[in-house]
Amino acid sequence: MCEITNRVIKLRKYMAKKDVDAVIIFSEDAHQSEYVSEYWKGREYISGFSGSAGVALVTRDKAFVWTDGRYFLQASNQLEETPFEMMKLATDGCPTLEEWLNENLCVGAKISFDGRTISKSNFDNLKNKLKDINPIFMIGEDLLDVIWRERPNPIFNKLRILPDDITGESANSKIDRVIKDIEKVGATGYFISSLDDIAWLLNLRGSDVDMNQVFMSYAYISNVFKYIWLSEQALSEEVVEYIKRTGFEIKCYENINYDLENICEHKIYLDNSKVNVLQYNILNQKNDIVVGSSIIAPLKAKKNATEVDRMRDVHIRDGVAMVRFLSWLYNHMNEQAKSLDDEFLESKYPRYEKIDEADIADILWYFRSQGDKILSPSFDTIAGYGANGAIVHYKPEKEIAMPIEKDNLLLIDSGAQYEDGTTDITRTIAIGELTREQKENYTLVLKAHIAFSIAKFLYPTFSSKIDMLARNVMWQEGKDYKHGTGHGVGFALNVHEDPPTTRESSNTVLEKGYIMSNEPGYYVENNYGIRIENLVCVVDYKSTNDGVFYQFENLTMCPIDKRPIVIEMLDKEEIQWLNDYHKQVYTKLSPLISNVEREWLKKATKAI
Amino acid sequence: MCEITNRVIKLRKYMAKKDVDAVIIFSEDAHQSEYVSEYWKGREYISGFSGSAGVALVTRDKAFVWTDGRYFLQASNQLEETPFEMMKLATDGCPTLEEWLNENLCVGAKISFDGRTISKSNFDNLKNKLKDINPIFMIGEDLLDVIWRERPNPIFNKLRILPDDITGESANSKIDRVIKDIEKVGATGYFISSLDDIAWLLNLRGSDVDMNQVFMSYAYISNVFKYIWLSEQALSEEVVEYIKRTGFEIKCYENINYDLENICEHKIYLDNSKVNVLQYNILNQKNDIVVGSSIIAPLKAKKNATEVDRMRDVHIRDGVAMVRFLSWLYNHMNEQAKSLDDEFLESKYPRYEKIDEADIADILWYFRSQGDKILSPSFDTIAGYGANGAIVHYKPEKEIAMPIEKDNLLLIDSGAQYEDGTTDITRTIAIGELTREQKENYTLVLKAHIAFSIAKFLYPTFSSKIDMLARNVMWQEGKDYKHGTGHGVGFALNVHEDPPTTRESSNTVLEKGYIMSNEPGYYVENNYGIRIENLVCVVDYKSTNDGVFYQFENLTMCPIDKRPIVIEMLDKEEIQWLNDYHKQVYTKLSPLISNVEREWLKKATKAI
Repeated sequence: MCEITNRVIKLRKYMAKKDVDAVIIFSEDAHQSEYVSEYWKGREYISGFSGSAGVALVTRDKAFVWTDGRYFLQASNQLEETPFEMMKLATDGCPTLEEWLNENLCVGAKISFDGRTISKSNFDNLKNKLKDINPIFMIGEDLLDVIWRERPNPIFNKLRILPDDITGESANSKIDRVIKDIEKVGATGYFISSLDDIAWLLNLRGSDVDMNQVFMSYAYISNVFKYIWLSEQALSEEVVEYIKRTGFEIKCYENINYDLENICEHKIYLDNSKVNVLQYNILNQKNDIVVGSSIIAPLKAKKNATEVDRMRDVHIRDGVAMVRFLSWLYNHMNEQAKSLDDEFLESKYPRYEKIDEADIADILWYFRSQGDKILSPSFDTIAGYGANGAIVHYKPEKEIAMPIEKDNLLLIDSGAQYEDGTTDITRTIAIGELTREQKENYTLVLKAHIAFSIAKFLYPTFSSKIDMLARNVMWQEGKDYKHGTGHGVGFALNVHEDPPTTRESSNTVLEKGYIMSNEPGYYVENNYGIRIENLVCVVDYKSTNDGVFYQFENLTMCPIDKRPIVIEMLDKEEIQWLNDYHKQVYTKLSPLISNVEREWLKKATKAI
Repeated sequence: MCEITNRVIKLRKYMAKKDVDAVIIFSEDAHQSEYVSEYWKGREYISGFSGSAGVALVTRDKAFVWTDGRYFLQASNQLEETPFEMMKLATDGCPTLEEWLNENLCVGAKISFDGRTISKSNFDNLKNKLKDINPIFMIGEDLLDVIWRERPNPIFNKLRILPDDITGESANSKIDRVIKDIEKVGATGYFISSLDDIAWLLNLRGSDVDMNQVFMSYAYISNVFKYIWLSEQALSEEVVEYIKRTGFEIKCYENINYDLENICEHKIYLDNSKVNVLQYNILNQKNDIVVGSSIIAPLKAKKNATEVDRMRDVHIRDGVAMVRFLSWLYNHMNEQAKSLDDEFLESKYPRYEKIDEADIADILWYFRSQGDKILSPSFDTIAGYGANGAIVHYKPEKEIAMPIEKDNLLLIDSGAQYEDGTTDITRTIAIGELTREQKENYTLVLKAHIAFSIAKFLYPTFSSKIDMLARNVMWQEGKDYKHGTGHGVGFALNVHEDPPTTRESSNTVLEKGYIMSNEPGYYVENNYGIRIENLVCVVDYKSTNDGVFYQFENLTMCPIDKRPIVIEMLDKEEIQWLNDYHKQVYTKLSPLISNVEREWLKKATKAI
């Protein structure tokens, strides 16, 4: 803790030297990524708070971290005995960062932050909100860098080429499509800073950001030249040759801003919510900027037949891991059950001995790691027992992980990155006896899940409309969950992709080949949480006089715990859905598992 | 027909004299009303086409009417042997008005139209689309007026004051609320041209537009003065006194534009989709204009407790008329049935003699006209037998009305204006035997209707979201209807109000007290149409930890024909809904009708 104080003292010294009144430390990297590598975790370095979202502010005599409801508990622990005060976003009486600055800084104050870590649109927003105090923004220098001696180096791991039999489309074909779209928006060039957009475009993958198959890069495509900025460290001879064949010229990642200065007289299209303000300013000097949303995102979202096939296959491998895990868990905790004879597990977690939430994450990864083409989890496993299940983004840390006791619900939200796909699944498991209320709420969430799953929709339908079908089931009982029902999922890329999203504000039409999650839930604070999540893919339903209709195909293959179901709450169609789904799960997974596991699966998928 | 040709010749002579290349004749009045009085029906006068929507264009050698799918049949009949050619909107190869003008007029051409009949926003739109030919717009003169010798006078009927026990809120209280909202949007004045907004604000009603309780007027409210422009003809001494008490100064309707010139140095809020371009231009000379949607519309939409009570009562009166009509229809067409002993009907429509769609409208009005506080229909009754039921806005004209035969569906969409409310109801009636397909589609529409009806929704929910609940039922079968599921309904005002609307583009939150229609349908072209419509009101459901939930209360009280229902397609909850609804209908209406009618109602509402 004292360490944090020291860091703040050092930063303030440097602030004094530079005559800076306030330093803001954001959570993003230079590409505005959702997940970032250690080099970019400056906010965690200066404050000690390690949650995925939050902004730190250090002034000459104050220090704050703003964060949201998911992290109040964690932040209050981690900020204890530091100079930082927690600011609870969206709670009564708590000013926003901008409100605090407006109230506490003088007109013309000097505010410094690393301009790489804020998008052009967020910068404009901030500037606009602070116009009353009209501050001087010093955004060219990262003040933290000077005091952060042990700062990890940026990571530039070796790139992998994804063959066309995995991607289903060559990089050259994708590049052609993007060039056509650049013409359509009336631009002559397109600057891309989103890591997953570049990975998709070039059929390349990396591992520079934990649990994401992306690599640090920028790209620029114009009608005359195509550049990709990469670090030398990332390149093998094979990859250099490969990139050359795509027509891209490799430039040095570290020189990006210098190179951008030499791009001139173009009409450049870019997504100003993804391009950082420094790079925007450079490009804006000698070019016309056309602002719009990513050209690549909607192309990337629409998975082609090969990608969908791969995702089906990946979900069978992932289902096998899930079933082996669930069967192990059942056998581990039930005295009558059979041993799985796994030496490693038997030695590390002797039978009937209590395990905790952190163990769950480890054991699940143990099963997943035995799968074909497995790379890593796709995000930190959420394993929330009882009350922790009600914390939507709960990540069990070993020191505070709850032991799995009897008679409550265990919510497990996890996923994996495979060379040929990405998964994301949530199951809520009954441990021991449940209350009637728990069972009813579980059944309600299942009904909501089914309502989404069986949706048929006329093309074009906005993705936000589907949300209503699941949510309406909860609303009938005066219940709600405070998160979207689904998000897009990348193909061997980020586990969160947009489009599609079920957010109210989204006007994205659901296209064939879109893959998204279906994850309604219900959370009783301090008590328990329920969520049931499958990934689904938009596929054909039928064409009639009234138009073209789509439906969802379930990709996720894993039993849904039947023990908490209140059968009389399900109608005939819902029971049919569950039985059909379980039959499919059994058919696909049973040949791929051991006898003991198959026995468990048979019971778990038996028709109700 | 020859008459139309003469009119066009006369218009072209005058166009030549004025050196005008093209005259556009729109369908709206100076207030951009959906329904207009005879004085404003210039498009019908010049072309002979009487549909509610359409635009006529007359050039020196061509003449067109653009209209939409609802009116293709009618327009092609009415435009026969006239110089007018029909342009089918939204059909392949048919240019829009703007496209035609762009292709056929020279740069700098002179286009004339009555500037009163186009809103500022539509004018801007038109101008923008024609910017390539950069025409000269002559919008100050209505060229039609010179040749239209027998043009009807504008109508200014006497105003009625609605007492507070009908409106539930005094005009003064409403005015105070509006003034506060004007301040909120940062304006000093508010110019109102929407007739129903003014009627609501002042608790006044008129009859200047058929089937609408509105009167020709404008209003202006500022922090210093309040004006209302009315015709002298509309005023009684009582009304003059009443208006004076609201603080409004009465100005002469005919002098509106002159008066607007004298309003200066204000910051004027107005809805530019409702204010005509001439008046916008006048106000814009000496004032700052702040453009936004109507301040009054959302206040007017949220019916207060008195209004909702009145609407409940009005719907019982309207239900009595509907039941008497349906019972008469049943008895008229069934040999075993009993006579109703209504002398007028017996003489005009002898028993078992065939009636047609136009008779249906007349007979239904006969029953409605006997109700308390009845004023008029709220729109032209749609009575579509068989194939005509598939024409969504079909209005049976006596000359072409279909006789009601056996073995098909009869769709009746009608409503009425009462002094204390407005109704809108659709029932689809089985005449004789139906096919299995007809029955299945009828049941599907009923299921969609019920899905909407039983919706519960967390506040705030966008009204467009509710649409999905009904439509999803149809989509499950690959079926769809090409209209919104519902529209707002005025209180003793226009039968169409917005907000609320279920249109995709609408971002209106459903507020308690909103009254809207629930009218899913299904249409098989050249065959039959099905629609089931009730009006519903947003009321409380429950408040829980998850928020405040609303639900709908059914206002419409009239049996839904059970004969076409395929019972096995309904689930338990749906059957329960129907039986509960019918029980309520019987309880409320049975004391108010004759024995013969009650006998019919008992059967019609018997539980399934």
